[in-house]
Amino acid sequence: MPTLSLHPDRLLPADPTTRAIARELYAEVAGLPIISPHGHTDPEWFATDAAWTNATELLLAPDHYLFRMLYSQGVDLDALRVPRKGGLVPDTDPRAAWRLFASHWHLFRGTPSSMWLNHVFAEVFGLDVTLDAGSADHYYDVIGEALASPAFRPRALFERFGIELLATTEGAGDDLAHHRAIRASGWQGRVVTTYRPDSVIDPEHDSFARDMARFAELSGEDVTNWTGYLAAHRRRRADFRAMGATATDHGFLTPRTANLSRAECEALFAKVMGGKADAEEAELFRAQMLTEMARMSLEDGMTMQIHPGATRNHNARLFASHGRDKGADIPRGTEYVEALRPMLDLFGNEPDLTVILFTLDETTYARELAPLAGHYPCLRLGPAWWFHDSPEGMRRFREMTTETAGFYNTVGFNDDTRAFLSIPARHDVARRIDCGFLARLVAEHRMADWEAAELAQELTVGLVRKAYGLEAPAREVEPA
Amino acid sequence: MPTLSLHPDRLLPADPTTRAIARELYAEVAGLPIISPHGHTDPEWFATDAAWTNATELLLAPDHYLFRMLYSQGVDLDALRVPRKGGLVPDTDPRAAWRLFASHWHLFRGTPSSMWLNHVFAEVFGLDVTLDAGSADHYYDVIGEALASPAFRPRALFERFGIELLATTEGAGDDLAHHRAIRASGWQGRVVTTYRPDSVIDPEHDSFARDMARFAELSGEDVTNWTGYLAAHRRRRADFRAMGATATDHGFLTPRTANLSRAECEALFAKVMGGKADAEEAELFRAQMLTEMARMSLEDGMTMQIHPGATRNHNARLFASHGRDKGADIPRGTEYVEALRPMLDLFGNEPDLTVILFTLDETTYARELAPLAGHYPCLRLGPAWWFHDSPEGMRRFREMTTETAGFYNTVGFNDDTRAFLSIPARHDVARRIDCGFLARLVAEHRMADWEAAELAQELTVGLVRKAYGLEAPAREVEPA
Amino acid sequence: MPTLSLHPDRLLPADPTTRAIARELYAEVAGLPIISPHGHTDPEWFATDAAWTNATELLLAPDHYLFRMLYSQGVDLDALRVPRKGGLVPDTDPRAAWRLFASHWHLFRGTPSSMWLNHVFAEVFGLDVTLDAGSADHYYDVIGEALASPAFRPRALFERFGIELLATTEGAGDDLAHHRAIRASGWQGRVVTTYRPDSVIDPEHDSFARDMARFAELSGEDVTNWTGYLAAHRRRRADFRAMGATATDHGFLTPRTANLSRAECEALFAKVMGGKADAEEAELFRAQMLTEMARMSLEDGMTMQIHPGATRNHNARLFASHGRDKGADIPRGTEYVEALRPMLDLFGNEPDLTVILFTLDETTYARELAPLAGHYPCLRLGPAWWFHDSPEGMRRFREMTTETAGFYNTVGFNDDTRAFLSIPARHDVARRIDCGFLARLVAEHRMADWEAAELAQELTVGLVRKAYGLEAPAREVEPA
Repeated sequence: MPTLSLHPDRLLPADPTTRAIARELYAEVAGLPIISPHGHTDPEWFATDAAWTNATELLLAPDHYLFRMLYSQGVDLDALRVPRKGGLVPDTDPRAAWRLFASHWHLFRGTPSSMWLNHVFAEVFGLDVTLDAGSADHYYDVIGEALASPAFRPRALFERFGIELLATTEGAGDDLAHHRAIRASGWQGRVVTTYRPDSVIDPEHDSFARDMARFAELSGEDVTNWTGYLAAHRRRRADFRAMGATATDHGFLTPRTANLSRAECEALFAKVMGGKADAEEAELFRAQMLTEMARMSLEDGMTMQIHPGATRNHNARLFASHGRDKGADIPRGTEYVEALRPMLDLFGNEPDLTVILFTLDETTYARELAPLAGHYPCLRLGPAWWFHDSPEGMRRFREMTTETAGFYNTVGFNDDTRAFLSIPARHDVARRIDCGFLARLVAEHRMADWEAAELAQELTVGLVRKAYGLEAPAREVEPA
Repeated sequence: MPTLSLHPDRLLPADPTTRAIARELYAEVAGLPIISPHGHTDPEWFATDAAWTNATELLLAPDHYLFRMLYSQGVDLDALRVPRKGGLVPDTDPRAAWRLFASHWHLFRGTPSSMWLNHVFAEVFGLDVTLDAGSADHYYDVIGEALASPAFRPRALFERFGIELLATTEGAGDDLAHHRAIRASGWQGRVVTTYRPDSVIDPEHDSFARDMARFAELSGEDVTNWTGYLAAHRRRRADFRAMGATATDHGFLTPRTANLSRAECEALFAKVMGGKADAEEAELFRAQMLTEMARMSLEDGMTMQIHPGATRNHNARLFASHGRDKGADIPRGTEYVEALRPMLDLFGNEPDLTVILFTLDETTYARELAPLAGHYPCLRLGPAWWFHDSPEGMRRFREMTTETAGFYNTVGFNDDTRAFLSIPARHDVARRIDCGFLARLVAEHRMADWEAAELAQELTVGLVRKAYGLEAPAREVEPA
Repeated sequence: MPTLSLHPDRLLPADPTTRAIARELYAEVAGLPIISPHGHTDPEWFATDAAWTNATELLLAPDHYLFRMLYSQGVDLDALRVPRKGGLVPDTDPRAAWRLFASHWHLFRGTPSSMWLNHVFAEVFGLDVTLDAGSADHYYDVIGEALASPAFRPRALFERFGIELLATTEGAGDDLAHHRAIRASGWQGRVVTTYRPDSVIDPEHDSFARDMARFAELSGEDVTNWTGYLAAHRRRRADFRAMGATATDHGFLTPRTANLSRAECEALFAKVMGGKADAEEAELFRAQMLTEMARMSLEDGMTMQIHPGATRNHNARLFASHGRDKGADIPRGTEYVEALRPMLDLFGNEPDLTVILFTLDETTYARELAPLAGHYPCLRLGPAWWFHDSPEGMRRFREMTTETAGFYNTVGFNDDTRAFLSIPARHDVARRIDCGFLARLVAEHRMADWEAAELAQELTVGLVRKAYGLEAPAREVEPA
């Protein structure tokens, strides 16, 4: 049975000169705390600190990176225990699901999922043989036993992982009860929320009506008129800040912004609320609201994140049976230069505003995003995202943005994950790739070694703290 | 006179560690049989087994990669004996044409054509000096003498090259006589056809009317109504399968698909046949027919290939004088996410359907194609195509698709060529580049050596057999 | 204080085998004369040979690469002495501005600006410590003293830099007085002009009216009718040729061309002159004029350069306060295949016409530009431009164009700069990157060493002389 081991030089460039430089840079940042300012873990885990059950429930069934690949090769989602629409869990034996996954593990060769999961297997669970059909039960048993022990409870792992801060993401209709519970518990782990109001901004969102009702209730505002609706956002942003939020997040198909007059806003809002907005009006409303969110960020200091470019739920049949987030979101070409202009006309020159741009369209790195971020005071570039959060994707991000935007208009790494156990793996990949990139610049005499060492620190902890307005802790968090 | 020799390490990465790994991987696949499931060689060659005449007729005049480059530098096509429209061959001495080509051979430095042709010169003809004005006559004589000998007849070379299977491409109006002749001859070489019905699907194709007449005649169906027209396709697909075809191929400007009702189809078809379809209706008809072809593939098991993105015959003056395929096809930006949606809504979730997507727009690799193929069961990614069938192009293909789609959603290599003598060279380039890519993953400890070795086999013979529904032969074909 | 030194192997690939090859290639071209056929230096410098004043005025305040990066991080432009609209210079102490710049020098890590300026600091001024807050005054003093000495006057540096030819760019309303003065002075430096008629072709240009008046005056033609307007262009092109011009340059947002009838041209021109052209008509007029410029180039032999794709003055507030060229130009996606078709239909097949295409949209390199230039006799590819004139940008240019267009459809390097002192640095970067690229091809056995050596010469001096119709000088210019 082939052994599983994580090579200490993994992901570092093969050239010996460059690798030696990269190794030195990496050694200085490998042990730094993890700062995770953008992600999708479940705050309930840290509120209740309940044990996870088994490998399938924890690692497979919720991970769309994994089941989408198996699905693409003809594997049925029910057989993997992926929940159907409404959360209905198929009646599949979780061990059988795990075996099926294990027998397809070769599909992930060359993908980030294989690096992340192998890291989890080896580092978190101490497994030392590779996953395949033959080792599936061994894996299932080892992982299951570990999860039953106190050392593998969410809070214990949080501490073991050396996490300085972890941001979750909640909608505008969320009561933040889990975050309140975390604070009330006295546990010291810094888990904060992020304001993600998509479902009360996008009239085409499938829970728009339901979430608007909750939004009204939680804010105590009359959200049926434009003034009250904006006031509700301000109120809820304050609620979120009270639970540690320093950022908002916005994920529409396009990054379009608008700058309508007050009268136009009122008329458009009335149409939206009356259910009479057509597709273009819905788009215009989202566009205007991105501008309003920027305005509020300038008022309240929250960092604004824009994540455009995903065609959600592309597979109609799968959406009908299984709902959102089932691996069927597909990127589309994205235009930023004209889309952002109305917002930038208003707030682009404000150095006290921070708007972080992400993309699923790598063609915009060198053509649009780096030139924009290398000019406008309010703009920063988020790290390589989603399909591009991978060794090659990160390398392309640095190669295509650095020469125009520099390193200092970027914001460190986001893991953007709901797979909590993979967070150390993901940050480790980013640190290794960044150190490899810096090492190449040093090896090619484009940068001094001491400059690269400073930058490695910045890319790991400095820039993320600055971009998200995070204080460094009095005492450094250290991995247990 | 500089010597010509093919270095055993050519195309492998320069880093010694990586090269050593690549060399080992390559050694295991270098001698595997050639499987060529998509290309444009002339079946008449194998039907008649007639000798080719000279270097100019065989290697220069039909190869648009070569004469387009010379043309771009001001060389007249007549002087290269490139046929004019209707096949009229200019009155140029073939030896003079060859000399002219040889004196411009430096133009190809750094291009795949130089690698392919040097391989042909050295390996097929045993030439050992480089091509230039001084060696032009020597080349012309050596090649001419070789071609006159039995060992250089098409079937002899087919066997010498170790070709397990070679697919040609014929239109829906082709009677497949050459393929029948090959079978009737008793020769054992596996030459199969591919169903390419573009000219009876695209109302704007210049031989639409002529080919529809042949299509009606050969199918025996009444192609003037929608039902008969579809039946004619089914009939002809069966004819092609009888001549070994396992695949269809479709090459329109866009990959747009549609899902019209039966009544809409009938009305649209009537308009097309009445010559009254405008540009948008012609596009809609092609779109609907891609969906119909997918439906038929699901019925009859033929693999469907989509090759979009080429603006054909961009040079109007040259098209008027020289006709199609004269090096004036220029790629354009191509959108897949919305274009394929109607077809995917119907058949995207069918694991028994295989649709292979190609592109001339590399920006879609990471943004659209890998995410689509990494989700939909019916989709696979064809290899780097045409202008991107090159060392750098192949490397970019792997770097930009693997992390999201994996290796197993790709289908091995296509040579896509009418230059029969270059087939071994082209497959050799692909094997070397793939082994180099795998070697980098191993050198960076992103994959184990044994995994890379398995993948090298898959990329060379395994995946192509699976994607095109090809049986492995009882006994492996070995190069003579 | 960290030392500043330029490593002799800088920018060469790290792999020792490849680096050794690159070093040999570079050694043969490092000392070749500089040919700068496209740039924006001020001809007045060479006409008057007046001394420059200080580091801030010479290196910082006019360089939008520098101040845009500082601006993006919240630094005020006034504090950097960047002129306001109309040339009004802020009342900031130039030494204070320099100190502010020095304290932000780390922002440029990994950017071409840091390579260019470090080259200027070390090679031109002999500085040997790195720039930072602590060394800012030392820098300011050393540079200021040097600039006061005769050896740092424009003509002396021109000779010291080994410049064989330097092209400036003037508008159609320029009287070329500086160029006449240079010639009248008897100085032997070859400084030539370039015809850039954008402001009398683009009805939306902010100095269209003013420049049309000058254009009429200088040409002596009646520019109020189409015939006179075209005659004025012909006259001014001749004036420019008399001042050494061998090229024209055109920089609109799109590369769209048109082929209107004479009557349509006259009607459109009347609309433009009447101030009644809408946005589409203005675009159509620019498109038609690109075609007219190509027609005139075919008549008079001037090389035509097209630089599309920049959204000028994206930052409205900054444009209002500071005017053009303040680092707020942002690239946009650019389409060439349909845009150039009308012009190519007319002149694409003319081997005596040279049209050089540039882009800010790298996605067009492999998809559109290399296929176009690898076919049409009139087309050549300009080097990686502006945001892409950088080590990574140049490398991508070669990787994405060479396999389809070859090296011989490219035209060597353009520095495209107004930063005169950085010209040797910029050409040096290009030579190193090109030699590194060639060295990789040699190390991977894709090209013989002697071929690479020939190409290194072509990429440095041969192709640029040919593309811009420049005679090699009787005696080679050698750096002093």
